[in-house]
Amino acid sequence: MRLAVDCMGGDHGPAVTLPACQSFLRKHPDAELLLVGTEQALAAVRGWERCTPVVATEVVTMDDPVEVALRRKKDSSMRVAISLLKAAEGQSARADACVSAGNTGALMAVARYVLKTLQGIDRPAIATVMPNRRDGFTTMLDLGANVDCTAEHLLQFAVMGSALVSAVEGKEEPTVGLLNIGEEAIKGSDTIKRAAELLRAAAAAGQLNFHGNVEGNDVFKGTTDIVVCDGFVGNVLLKASEGLASMMADFIRQEFTRNVFTRLAALAALPVLNRFKARVDPRRYNGGALLGLRGLVFKSHGSADAFAFENALARAYDAARNRLLDRVHDRILGTLQAAAPGPVVHAA
Amino acid sequence: MRLAVDCMGGDHGPAVTLPACQSFLRKHPDAELLLVGTEQALAAVRGWERCTPVVATEVVTMDDPVEVALRRKKDSSMRVAISLLKAAEGQSARADACVSAGNTGALMAVARYVLKTLQGIDRPAIATVMPNRRDGFTTMLDLGANVDCTAEHLLQFAVMGSALVSAVEGKEEPTVGLLNIGEEAIKGSDTIKRAAELLRAAAAAGQLNFHGNVEGNDVFKGTTDIVVCDGFVGNVLLKASEGLASMMADFIRQEFTRNVFTRLAALAALPVLNRFKARVDPRRYNGGALLGLRGLVFKSHGSADAFAFENALARAYDAARNRLLDRVHDRILGTLQAAAPGPVVHAA
Repeated sequence: MRLAVDCMGGDHGPAVTLPACQSFLRKHPDAELLLVGTEQALAAVRGWERCTPVVATEVVTMDDPVEVALRRKKDSSMRVAISLLKAAEGQSARADACVSAGNTGALMAVARYVLKTLQGIDRPAIATVMPNRRDGFTTMLDLGANVDCTAEHLLQFAVMGSALVSAVEGKEEPTVGLLNIGEEAIKGSDTIKRAAELLRAAAAAGQLNFHGNVEGNDVFKGTTDIVVCDGFVGNVLLKASEGLASMMADFIRQEFTRNVFTRLAALAALPVLNRFKARVDPRRYNGGALLGLRGLVFKSHGSADAFAFENALARAYDAARNRLLDRVHDRILGTLQAAAPGPVVHAA
Repeated sequence: MRLAVDCMGGDHGPAVTLPACQSFLRKHPDAELLLVGTEQALAAVRGWERCTPVVATEVVTMDDPVEVALRRKKDSSMRVAISLLKAAEGQSARADACVSAGNTGALMAVARYVLKTLQGIDRPAIATVMPNRRDGFTTMLDLGANVDCTAEHLLQFAVMGSALVSAVEGKEEPTVGLLNIGEEAIKGSDTIKRAAELLRAAAAAGQLNFHGNVEGNDVFKGTTDIVVCDGFVGNVLLKASEGLASMMADFIRQEFTRNVFTRLAALAALPVLNRFKARVDPRRYNGGALLGLRGLVFKSHGSADAFAFENALARAYDAARNRLLDRVHDRILGTLQAAAPGPVVHAA
């Protein structure tokens, strides 16, 4: 397994990505890395085992507009890393998956331009996992790649999400929930209603395991393995959750540092609090998958530290090892055939 | 100030609403209550001071479809309570605000049918508050009354929300944020972009204090006093937040009850943990406002206990005392005039 790493991406660049790569290599003895970055940044990796430095002359910054990443910086570490997924089979510089902490908009646009989407996929989606009460993870998509989604897009997200979970978590028939609202007055928009019909049909055809509608709280209940929604709702839910979790963590900290007595209590409670902290630590589930492309691209949080970035590398590694790309492709084709019987031209 | 209370609504009905009313009356010596319920339920309130029992023969259950509440149960406690807002000025059975824990869909439909919307309002919205890092509250709307919203609707929500916050929290020019997503690739749908234009125009005309776009995490940062979004997104955000908060609370509980040592730690930390719990206790901010109607209707969480329901009563009381209805009406008219100069027919 060979991963291409955009070493320059993220708020901290090589200072975070390189140590993460070292630690990742120690834990994955059969993994190889293609480290993409500037000459200067890669000077540090000379002589690293199972690492091949790949020099890029440009860097996409966190606030570079999409157009700049796409049209101007054609030799950016981001773009070069993604391009390594396209190298011919067996070629030494060919990567099985790519990881970047660069800005999401640019990453999605460049990946889409360089790799193109899989046959049967109109739009790629971003998927990530959130912790749930069952001490498992709920996979959510889309998280911001698509603002307005049709019912067909939501169906495609469900299929891609199912492929992701079955590949990475080994659940053959993961359950899919369609994010909706519960109020009697307004059981969802027409798009949601149509999406539910399409999902039921796909389930009837044995293409996926559709649970039905779910609500916001079901994400954390772990009602279904996968929750499907449009990119606007998904992005709002993700960011609101991050905001609420960090607010609650802060409140706990504030209460425990209020005075000498609470500080003593904190001392007594420290091991417990640390276990709690570890349990909801977002760094543990860093690494979103860009699904629907002809190549495996994983997006790390821009503010990721070495521990978080290493987790993104691990997720990409697992996905590649479990042939996520083929699985998404196969499932999509299966669903297309079920939806519209007849010959289907296979993707190149 | 006189409140009409639907004593039968919610998961627990009179068992919760009546004790809440008693406690509310003790704390609000100038308040009067019109207690609406079945003969049997109201038997308990005979002789209560500042309380007038109003008998209704039917009850809208939590899972009654809207049609049933609207067309069949015409003498439901919910409908009777709302109708008391329409009684003629000065009449002894006239209420200044109404509170129900009944099912939201039915409540909105009945309130809309009985009261009608204010002039200039196409659709009523549901607003509630969420705690934020500034130890204040962020007011959000819509929370589920409208799935698909136009830019004009979002503007109306902003105006109504501003009226609510200025009335209840006494902030004359509360800041308004438009909920959007941050990814470069997709700065919101066309509706959101148009809404932003309308909000900027209204701000330029001095009708409201528009901050600009905000993201999901800004709700808990307290970046703005008010966050405006469509009912689908708002409902998902609200329920996801409830789900995440209760999951985190559960995780803390689990960690502190793991073994005898953690239980001892819990003992030491108990006062701190309780202060934290109180700080994020959703019961403290129970009570959503149905805005845009020709009457003040407040919705309590269906699962509210007496403490939570009393807070909903208090919110309704504050709103009525601060003439929320007139303020919403005046602001809406002002905005309409600013948007379309010329004579405006005043609402009856």
